[in-house]
Amino acid sequence: MSKSFNDLLSRVSACSVKKVAVAVAQDSAVLEAVQAARERNIAEAILVGDEDKIKDVAASIHMDLSGYEIIDEKEDYTAALKAVELVHTGRADMYMKGLIDTKSFLKSVLDKEVGLRTGKPLSHVCVFEVEGIDHLLFLSDVAFMTYPTLEDKVHIIENTVQVCHACGIPVPKVAPLAAVEVVNPKMPVTVDADALTKMCEEGKITGCIVDGPLSLDLAIDPAAAKHKGAEGRKIVGDADILLFPDIHAGNLVYKCLVHTAKVKNGNILTGTKAPVILTSRSDDFETKVNSLALGAVVAEALKGC
Amino acid sequence: MSKSFNDLLSRVSACSVKKVAVAVAQDSAVLEAVQAARERNIAEAILVGDEDKIKDVAASIHMDLSGYEIIDEKEDYTAALKAVELVHTGRADMYMKGLIDTKSFLKSVLDKEVGLRTGKPLSHVCVFEVEGIDHLLFLSDVAFMTYPTLEDKVHIIENTVQVCHACGIPVPKVAPLAAVEVVNPKMPVTVDADALTKMCEEGKITGCIVDGPLSLDLAIDPAAAKHKGAEGRKIVGDADILLFPDIHAGNLVYKCLVHTAKVKNGNILTGTKAPVILTSRSDDFETKVNSLALGAVVAEALKGC
Repeated sequence: MSKSFNDLLSRVSACSVKKVAVAVAQDSAVLEAVQAARERNIAEAILVGDEDKIKDVAASIHMDLSGYEIIDEKEDYTAALKAVELVHTGRADMYMKGLIDTKSFLKSVLDKEVGLRTGKPLSHVCVFEVEGIDHLLFLSDVAFMTYPTLEDKVHIIENTVQVCHACGIPVPKVAPLAAVEVVNPKMPVTVDADALTKMCEEGKITGCIVDGPLSLDLAIDPAAAKHKGAEGRKIVGDADILLFPDIHAGNLVYKCLVHTAKVKNGNILTGTKAPVILTSRSDDFETKVNSLALGAVVAEALKGC
Repeated sequence: MSKSFNDLLSRVSACSVKKVAVAVAQDSAVLEAVQAARERNIAEAILVGDEDKIKDVAASIHMDLSGYEIIDEKEDYTAALKAVELVHTGRADMYMKGLIDTKSFLKSVLDKEVGLRTGKPLSHVCVFEVEGIDHLLFLSDVAFMTYPTLEDKVHIIENTVQVCHACGIPVPKVAPLAAVEVVNPKMPVTVDADALTKMCEEGKITGCIVDGPLSLDLAIDPAAAKHKGAEGRKIVGDADILLFPDIHAGNLVYKCLVHTAKVKNGNILTGTKAPVILTSRSDDFETKVNSLALGAVVAEALKGC
């Protein structure tokens, strides 16, 4: 079971080296992460983009390109399609965004011919190691799905549970979060949380335990859960998955953790045939490398070890 | 200008000692806070409740009751009404919840005869000192107003700006928060944030600077704001007031700070004639004392030094 990013890296190194196809690879931050992923035995990369520019950027960061497969394609969207097709056909195991805008990148992910769509909605999973919390937290959705319906929330849970399973957490605990712990018809998010809990009890959501609505302290702090009295609850400060009411709540908590707590994190896009790594320019170097490690374990689980 | 709770305590000690009327005072955690508030010259208390029980509880925590005014009233709601009336008539400067349920306590706050209503909506202000942030953050609303309308948000800003002014922050910067920094008609919270920004520019909201929508990193992290490029923005990681989209987003961030970051905090209810201290059973001792200090500076500002 992965309880930290170090555990996750051990898990990665126990499997065969994965391949990541990078769309429009001429980006220094992305190439630095790719280089570190090779050094740490996380993944090898196939670099798709403008070869001259890739070589220039690599030189500027003292990166040795020998042994990397480079596919020369100067037009950005065509490069993205060529990169995603490598994953579609199984030549690569995961797909990563380079120097291309998010909208075009996502269009390539969803391309009907060569993309990675499964027919299910995509969702974003952000994994955190937080100082003071003894296991990884899986947050969703903090970046992609804006106002999930009850049906969307079922998909978010399924997508995120799959990531937990890949990380060796056999029965993750899912906390549908709210400001309160009781169902209140005037707060629709608590009604959804209750419905999700019942769906899990009835076997309509599987592979996990769902218990909500929950406030954040009851979800992540065993002492607070004990103090408040959490008799009869299935989650007592030991949630693995934090399900947010909407993108605003999710994104604000995500940024609160990054900017005020001591954390490590990584994130991937799920609901696709293979993991998609969509780091943002504000993510630091370690976050990009952690995201590749996370992508590698999920790719391994999707393919079988 | 108060940049920390220590600054706030210095500010309190520069003024005359305030009086807090406690509703149903026979509560050990509340009496401990009241005792500390006296020791630190924050406030004296008038204890309203069952005198026998107050004496028993005081004895159990080795609290010396000499010098405290005690008003004996065994019926809880009557005790609350007697306590709030002390504030209503000016004999006390602030009102604090003891061993009474929140609903009854708030009913006493809003009582037409002896309560503290102003005709404006009440809102909750939670003040944080966060390790790594060089000034106090004023969060609203994380506990009281559930789904504020645009008009409610104007009141929340006015209430919170008043608290900032009391803390010596002459022109607080208000960040209406969202997951994104651009207005998107599909995200009503961004439309509201933009409207609030324009209302401030047009002089309809005064005593502060409003700039939104803002993501949390741009609101509280100057380095992130610089990295993302915040040209033309009035807030570049230096927000004082964090305005939340709804109670879920606010409460989740509030609990994220309390349970994962290194913080001090205190909170009061505003929009009333005098500050109301409504700490919850999960607040620790220092939070209760900080809340009394915050109430004292606000009471001072409302009365004039």
